[in-house]
Amino acid sequence: MSKKPQVKNKEMDNIVSLAKRRGFIFPSSEIYGGLSSAWDYGPLGVQLKNNLEQFWWREMTQLHDNIVGIDAAIMMHPRVWEASGHVENFSDLMVEDTVTNERFRFDLLPEECQQEMKSPKGNPLSEPRQFNLMFATHMGPVADAGSKVYLRPETAQGIYVNFKNVAQTSRVKVPFGIAQVGKAFRNEIVTKNFIFRTCEFEQLEMQYFVHPKEDEKWFEFWKEQRINYYDKLGIRRDKLRFHQHGPDELAHYAKDAFDIEYEFPFGWKELEGIHNRTDFDLSRHSEFSGKDLTYLDDQTSERYLPYIIETSAGLTRGVLMALCDAYEEQELEGGDSRTVLHLHPRIAPITVAVFPLVKKDGLAELARDLERELREDFSTFYDQSGAIGRRYRRQDEVGTPFCITVDYDTKEDNSVTLRYRDSMEQVRVPITELVGTIKQAVKEYRRV
Amino acid sequence: MSKKPQVKNKEMDNIVSLAKRRGFIFPSSEIYGGLSSAWDYGPLGVQLKNNLEQFWWREMTQLHDNIVGIDAAIMMHPRVWEASGHVENFSDLMVEDTVTNERFRFDLLPEECQQEMKSPKGNPLSEPRQFNLMFATHMGPVADAGSKVYLRPETAQGIYVNFKNVAQTSRVKVPFGIAQVGKAFRNEIVTKNFIFRTCEFEQLEMQYFVHPKEDEKWFEFWKEQRINYYDKLGIRRDKLRFHQHGPDELAHYAKDAFDIEYEFPFGWKELEGIHNRTDFDLSRHSEFSGKDLTYLDDQTSERYLPYIIETSAGLTRGVLMALCDAYEEQELEGGDSRTVLHLHPRIAPITVAVFPLVKKDGLAELARDLERELREDFSTFYDQSGAIGRRYRRQDEVGTPFCITVDYDTKEDNSVTLRYRDSMEQVRVPITELVGTIKQAVKEYRRV
Repeated sequence: MSKKPQVKNKEMDNIVSLAKRRGFIFPSSEIYGGLSSAWDYGPLGVQLKNNLEQFWWREMTQLHDNIVGIDAAIMMHPRVWEASGHVENFSDLMVEDTVTNERFRFDLLPEECQQEMKSPKGNPLSEPRQFNLMFATHMGPVADAGSKVYLRPETAQGIYVNFKNVAQTSRVKVPFGIAQVGKAFRNEIVTKNFIFRTCEFEQLEMQYFVHPKEDEKWFEFWKEQRINYYDKLGIRRDKLRFHQHGPDELAHYAKDAFDIEYEFPFGWKELEGIHNRTDFDLSRHSEFSGKDLTYLDDQTSERYLPYIIETSAGLTRGVLMALCDAYEEQELEGGDSRTVLHLHPRIAPITVAVFPLVKKDGLAELARDLERELREDFSTFYDQSGAIGRRYRRQDEVGTPFCITVDYDTKEDNSVTLRYRDSMEQVRVPITELVGTIKQAVKEYRRV
Repeated sequence: MSKKPQVKNKEMDNIVSLAKRRGFIFPSSEIYGGLSSAWDYGPLGVQLKNNLEQFWWREMTQLHDNIVGIDAAIMMHPRVWEASGHVENFSDLMVEDTVTNERFRFDLLPEECQQEMKSPKGNPLSEPRQFNLMFATHMGPVADAGSKVYLRPETAQGIYVNFKNVAQTSRVKVPFGIAQVGKAFRNEIVTKNFIFRTCEFEQLEMQYFVHPKEDEKWFEFWKEQRINYYDKLGIRRDKLRFHQHGPDELAHYAKDAFDIEYEFPFGWKELEGIHNRTDFDLSRHSEFSGKDLTYLDDQTSERYLPYIIETSAGLTRGVLMALCDAYEEQELEGGDSRTVLHLHPRIAPITVAVFPLVKKDGLAELARDLERELREDFSTFYDQSGAIGRRYRRQDEVGTPFCITVDYDTKEDNSVTLRYRDSMEQVRVPITELVGTIKQAVKEYRRV
């Protein structure tokens, strides 16, 4: 038992190091010493993040009946955050070291500091006070209270305030959903575990509007849908679990809530929450806006405030999950080893890498032309430097599922060697069948 | 001459009205009376915007040699904005009505107000003073100067500060480019023309790093590439023009600059800027960060600061351009008329709409099944209500390029009617050939 955490932290260090070294994730503004808890996505990271976002978007909207998307602005009317309860309740209890003026989250101080009201340095602490976690700024030229706006701390409210607009313009009928991807901002003090928790992050949220009597049925439906989603992404099932919120964990608006948790190298952590929010949100926005947000069922003529079943996932922590779940340091036969990312081909930053066996004798040109052709259908990468085995390893390390090598035989038989990342199996494929073969392999992909 | 502006404003009104009515674009936080100049994208708007973003991203990264992407955080280290010059120079000259305390941008006041230093209400104006256009907020629990951060007013700086990280991790060699899509924020007072200029907006930026002696060659290259891009999007060529910045328009960092302008209903306006920024950015960031940002050419062993050719386009105003360019109120034979959006099929929110001719006799189920099958490849929409002609019109109005009708013959011949939006031509296509036929039509699309 005692050694396990160390092993896991080592794995985390290796993942962070790989992410930096291969251009997935850099500390933000690094040349200026970085900005606390902010990260920039490099060439491979942005592809992975975009692919993950598009995978979710496609699953939730294009492939699903009755779910449409929206994209609301980050800056919303300040009343939205009064209605949502964020102005009043979205805060941490903070204390200040009365000598050094350092501030701490009270609940994160060691127990003895809390009891003795001493800072970690031994100085007296100030009285605890609430500190709101929303970032505030001012719109317009005058910095007065009337111009104060917040950066949204969650994307969900953008969906609620657009409920009526969407229902009226999109010919959707309850039950239906509205999906949104976007940035949210929380001025949190404690930030750790790489990109797991950051002040600026991206959410994948879907709010499903249902008849109040059908809330429990749809809650179960979405629990099942959302756990299956991770299966489709190729995430290992034994690394996932549900965690039901107990009475003391439930948010004030929630009738029932389950988290989907993933076992990161630093422990089980929330990936996504599925919440039965009842009619809390629509009734609060009705009250604060003075607008009637009820829904009229044109079949039954019943008018009611829909209940909301929410599925709320983090995109940025989804990237971390994908990296952690994919990462393997693999011992091979013959004492060799490799680092490989078993990313699902649909989210891998590069789908196909193309190599000439050697640069000379026209193989480089042949391979380059093939790579250019394949761009129409796939995200590609061309590499002609180093031994072919090293080139495979470099692609394994960033999760490229398919490598193609153009060799001397290619000139004769118009075929190439297609090499699969996970099995390292190599097969000979005619160039004319390449696109189809790879597309089929993407569709049928199952992690071994 | 005198009537033309009115006609054009009428067209703009119709476009804004269509955008609202069909769920493209809503005023932000509308139930709370809206937030000045902020807009939310509805179900069709978010699809159009996403498609446009992905079209640009694919053209600039996947289909292009030597361009990689990044995604930097919105909040960057404050020193970035000192290096870029934004803290010092990114401001408007403002004046205040000394009686009502209203503020105005000095340069936008009527000339006689400026000369007499009177507000539009006739009251004396205060002395003009500079007002910085960056939104400021505070990170961490203490709102002091040391915790002040800005929301980026442009995405470009995120690319410059990551230049070294990208060059070191991505095996790219000068000339190469870094592309980025993301939100930027400017606290601008005057906001008009719908989504053309908004405080919160999205940029499509690509910074191309070149040898200082090759700047003019690459500047010409990118001018040509970028104007061709709009052709590929199906934008009418006679609505586009270049505007070269004169000596008094050139930014302090620019050696040469061209705008690509589009003729909106409210006049010729900038869509995108192509700038030769010289080595201004990298030399400023070298100076302010103390880091060596030179590039070493491993062939020639020459070490230098690359010049930067920038292509900077607005995504949100690109959406407006796409809507304006696509919009047509068309008189048809026989006195009929229709409103149609001639959107390129690659960016149309819905690619394929599927209708049963009538709901009964199993046609609805047949059509619904077909629509579900087509989701795998296209963004689809199912509609069974109203006369078939009205269903076509509803799709014309939102730019759906292909409509499919399932009729009684479908049961016999396993074929459907495929109807093209622009020509309104209808052809009979076997279901087995539908996906291929539509994909081919998307590829070959040319606006008539």
